[in-house]
Amino acid sequence: MSTSTRYAKVTGRFPMHRGGFLESPTVAYETWGTLRGKGENAILLFTGLSPSAHAASSPDNPAAGWWEEMIGSGLPLDTDRYFVICVNSIGSCFGSTGPASIDPLTGERYRLGFPVLSLEDVAEGGYQVARHLGLETLHTTIGCSMGGMSALAFCVRHPGFSAGLISVSSATRALPFSIAVRSLQREMIRQDPKWKAGNYDPADPPIAGQRLARKLGMITYRSAKEWEQRFGRERVSSEGYDGDPFHGDFSVESYLEMHANRFTGQFDPNCYLYLSRASDLFDFAEHGGSLESGFSKLKLARAQVIGVETDILFPMHQQKQLADGLSTVVTEVQYVPLACIRGHDSFLVDMDAFRPVIGGYFDTFAH
Amino acid sequence: MSTSTRYAKVTGRFPMHRGGFLESPTVAYETWGTLRGKGENAILLFTGLSPSAHAASSPDNPAAGWWEEMIGSGLPLDTDRYFVICVNSIGSCFGSTGPASIDPLTGERYRLGFPVLSLEDVAEGGYQVARHLGLETLHTTIGCSMGGMSALAFCVRHPGFSAGLISVSSATRALPFSIAVRSLQREMIRQDPKWKAGNYDPADPPIAGQRLARKLGMITYRSAKEWEQRFGRERVSSEGYDGDPFHGDFSVESYLEMHANRFTGQFDPNCYLYLSRASDLFDFAEHGGSLESGFSKLKLARAQVIGVETDILFPMHQQKQLADGLSTVVTEVQYVPLACIRGHDSFLVDMDAFRPVIGGYFDTFAH
Repeated sequence: MSTSTRYAKVTGRFPMHRGGFLESPTVAYETWGTLRGKGENAILLFTGLSPSAHAASSPDNPAAGWWEEMIGSGLPLDTDRYFVICVNSIGSCFGSTGPASIDPLTGERYRLGFPVLSLEDVAEGGYQVARHLGLETLHTTIGCSMGGMSALAFCVRHPGFSAGLISVSSATRALPFSIAVRSLQREMIRQDPKWKAGNYDPADPPIAGQRLARKLGMITYRSAKEWEQRFGRERVSSEGYDGDPFHGDFSVESYLEMHANRFTGQFDPNCYLYLSRASDLFDFAEHGGSLESGFSKLKLARAQVIGVETDILFPMHQQKQLADGLSTVVTEVQYVPLACIRGHDSFLVDMDAFRPVIGGYFDTFAH
Repeated sequence: MSTSTRYAKVTGRFPMHRGGFLESPTVAYETWGTLRGKGENAILLFTGLSPSAHAASSPDNPAAGWWEEMIGSGLPLDTDRYFVICVNSIGSCFGSTGPASIDPLTGERYRLGFPVLSLEDVAEGGYQVARHLGLETLHTTIGCSMGGMSALAFCVRHPGFSAGLISVSSATRALPFSIAVRSLQREMIRQDPKWKAGNYDPADPPIAGQRLARKLGMITYRSAKEWEQRFGRERVSSEGYDGDPFHGDFSVESYLEMHANRFTGQFDPNCYLYLSRASDLFDFAEHGGSLESGFSKLKLARAQVIGVETDILFPMHQQKQLADGLSTVVTEVQYVPLACIRGHDSFLVDMDAFRPVIGGYFDTFAH
């Protein structure tokens, strides 16, 4: 855990959206910049499935964060002007209470005893942090990927609390293609004999299954177009693999291997399973019975919806649907389709495309 | 094995394209219709990765074949006019010699001792069948998916033997996205502890890994658009799964489960690994050093290239590239992009779209 991480401790029972509760959970967060007033300059950031709250470096933790090029002095989330908060999702394993945490009622890890997780619970974790910090309002709530759905849940559960919403490569709910991909990723982990129905040894987790899931993730996070340009049919050396007729010597296979190796051991498998399933379960239409009624509950002054043409997990027509829905109730909606070729991950790797768009939002709606 | 299966036995050593040889291998095939002359009315059909040679029913085997609605009296591959031959790929497990066969030199299964498999070897298996049947020419060679690459290999290795070529949802070589998907499918099987480095008990194969690979297959064989229309966020009953927080109750998850269950045990895992890798390795540019020189070796009077807009494994721009390349050396090239929504699998399930196209080819080029 980075030393810049702070913790909001919830007092008493935290009711979960789909039933059950957590006893006095913790929500980890980090902040950058200086708070003004009651939160008029505050930006609340929800992450995708796997990042921690360490979105950017800080004096307490100089390591680069997952959105390092977006948050800082003079950057779109300008810490000279704004107070930026990033929360680690409830259900995750980077300081917030999740399946890998000790249940204070049993003294044991929750594991599969953790209640069903919903992105509404993740949203509520963010609200707890905001209240913990004494905020009564927010300039803008931002979420990327799964975090965009958490941000939407936040805005519909606390209408009027945040004046703005930025949805980055997200949607009102998952498509069956995306559900199929995530379901298969979960099955890869659950099929690993080391998973042991969730009761794995934390020192010997189901890494083989996690590596497979990570590789499928990379296949869907990027785009075929990018890989065609980047790798084509380039080969790497196969030296030393004479005995294995299936050793992957295409550059794209080596690339997936590198990413799988990098990921291993960083993320608790049960936490991954819960957050992945929560992404499938989220449906904005549950907030009132239809998407229309969900949108009608929002009280936003402004919104921005950014999507990427090569994103196959949250494809453009979903971005358009979200922007159209927001436009029925929000006066100022910026809909920005981007022609990036790096797929769903573009918001992490194609910063030259994203910075001007998000910077433009904050210039337009600056206080 | 169906009783309609016939066998061509190769005498002596069969040299493999990338080195090594098979001792007196067998190539399984089926035929429909009546041969005329030296093969002027013969059609040679190469399959995708998993089918057998049983492409259509026959008096000897009334079970429906994998292309039942395409082959028969009055159908596009009209058995009243044409003599249709379908071959089981060398490397497969439905009668042709493959990794699951007994190596006559050792008396044991080949398993991973099988030499590296290339689609040129599959093509050569088809040529052996044609010669076994006494053919000196072919009206048309057809291949679907992987079979399209085998058909292309056939035509470049035996220029002038076949007057025509039909490529269905195939390409001159695999894209890195498709390689990544197949590489991951192979890894799923190889990670299954029951695979045992290829030395699994045939009665207890790595079914868990095969099921995962099949599910990833289905995700890439169909299309996100189809599933959005077909399943949306529909749920199935979760009764009896109270103990499993990750039980898949979305219809799309149930659909994948059904397909995985249907597939299990039908296909030998090592054969799958070899054929999958052969699909990655095939590169038409190897026939002369470039795609252009590969095309220049062909001697075809006519060709048809059919592709589907929602195919993510062999996307449309690859179909166009193939058709353009053929057009540089073949006078009559029909390029037919289809707007089917069922992705790569459309040629198996959207027969109303494919029948008129393939029927049109045979009407145009009938003897």
